[in-house]
Amino acid sequence: MPHQPSSRAPIGVFDSGVGGLTVVRALRDLLPNERLIYFGDTARVPYGTKSEPTIRKYAAEDAALLMRYEPKLIVVACNTVSALALDVVEDTAKGVGVLGVIKAGASSALKKSAEKRIGVIGTQATIASYAYQRELHRLNDDVQVFAKACPLFVPLAEEGFATHEATRLIAKEYLAELLDSRIDALILGCTHYPILKPTIQDVVGKKVALIDSAEAIAQEVKAHLSERGLLGDASPEPPRVLVSDVPQRFRAIAERFLGFELGEIELVEI
Amino acid sequence: MPHQPSSRAPIGVFDSGVGGLTVVRALRDLLPNERLIYFGDTARVPYGTKSEPTIRKYAAEDAALLMRYEPKLIVVACNTVSALALDVVEDTAKGVGVLGVIKAGASSALKKSAEKRIGVIGTQATIASYAYQRELHRLNDDVQVFAKACPLFVPLAEEGFATHEATRLIAKEYLAELLDSRIDALILGCTHYPILKPTIQDVVGKKVALIDSAEAIAQEVKAHLSERGLLGDASPEPPRVLVSDVPQRFRAIAERFLGFELGEIELVEI
Repeated sequence: MPHQPSSRAPIGVFDSGVGGLTVVRALRDLLPNERLIYFGDTARVPYGTKSEPTIRKYAAEDAALLMRYEPKLIVVACNTVSALALDVVEDTAKGVGVLGVIKAGASSALKKSAEKRIGVIGTQATIASYAYQRELHRLNDDVQVFAKACPLFVPLAEEGFATHEATRLIAKEYLAELLDSRIDALILGCTHYPILKPTIQDVVGKKVALIDSAEAIAQEVKAHLSERGLLGDASPEPPRVLVSDVPQRFRAIAERFLGFELGEIELVEI
Repeated sequence: MPHQPSSRAPIGVFDSGVGGLTVVRALRDLLPNERLIYFGDTARVPYGTKSEPTIRKYAAEDAALLMRYEPKLIVVACNTVSALALDVVEDTAKGVGVLGVIKAGASSALKKSAEKRIGVIGTQATIASYAYQRELHRLNDDVQVFAKACPLFVPLAEEGFATHEATRLIAKEYLAELLDSRIDALILGCTHYPILKPTIQDVVGKKVALIDSAEAIAQEVKAHLSERGLLGDASPEPPRVLVSDVPQRFRAIAERFLGFELGEIELVEI
């Protein structure tokens, strides 16, 4: 019989690197009484430019690592893994719920789009997987989806160029065809992109609603736990942060994504 | 007794990813009768933002992989590995010569700088290692070195933004303090940077000589083989290319770096 999770167990969150801390931040805001354990695969980041077999192998290893901490739920903060390897995570995390950012972002976008003309931006792997496109069409037959890979957004966010003129020029180029397609909602389909929100909003204009997948998944987590009587009641405590490498300036970048100071960063072998 | 290399053996070249193909290109131009075998660790790229222990572990694995092909010489095309882990490669490649790009670039820069005011740009790990700075000072007591990490140059080169206005703006910002320091030579201390040469040259002006470490190391390889009677006389053939992952658009990016069409790309486990 599969292990029955306890409401006191932590929520496990993982991402290819530091970006998923935007999900941790949203979870902590919405669910302050949950224990959170985060794994960022900083030794092997980025996933978004890699091949599908490699992404699936990494996803299984990441999920297995989090299972050691006996979580009550696994949140796949990585859009690339959610798009290409959610089934691998489900197979690894038997008896424990698994939520990915794709479904959460797609359903939130449909609520915010009156015209049902939705843009999606993400890494090359996420966009090429058609995962958002498929999920949006599954939820609504009439939706029109326009997708664009924006690979430079990740390094620009990490390097602190979020509001730089160069980033605005690159955003204008990346987003031009989506604007030509008259979208009224845009899914930020990568955990790094919320950092660039002001620049992206400026380029697309105020009439386009931006969907932050971190906020969307936090709502899904709340609903999932609540339905199963698994909501926690722990005293608020800082999230536990595990990484596979501690790169230069990791703490500074991590705190920019998290919005508050990090405690100890634990290095794990993967 | 260590294995004595044969002149017919291939030259092994490795890098963290695709960038080292600029070295393969320079070697092929200068030494068309050498057999070349290249390994790009595309599953774990980039190295330049990772920690020293992780970079050293990867360097040992990369060298061990190339040793399976019994090379007569190992060329470390990766500036980050040359800076932080050349000793690890030497330990792994017993009986075989090892040349790194740092020494080649430093000695070429000194020849081209009249004022002995030299700039160095590279990844965070390369710059923070002080490897170029130390090597330049070892070769010349009077040199003044000004260094700057330019982490966005790698993704900009890979994404085909080499001559984009955004790249020029970012280059202007990165290079401003080096220009204030009145350098007359600038080492492109990362295998990706030759792709951005026209933009960088435009920003620094024609009075600053750019040192391309790919060209510099090709000259060192020729001297090394010639001194040891190890120059090859094979009929020209395409380089053999091994990678640890075949990411999306790999071939297109690789051919941009290499300057000619690739044959088969072999996937290896590492």
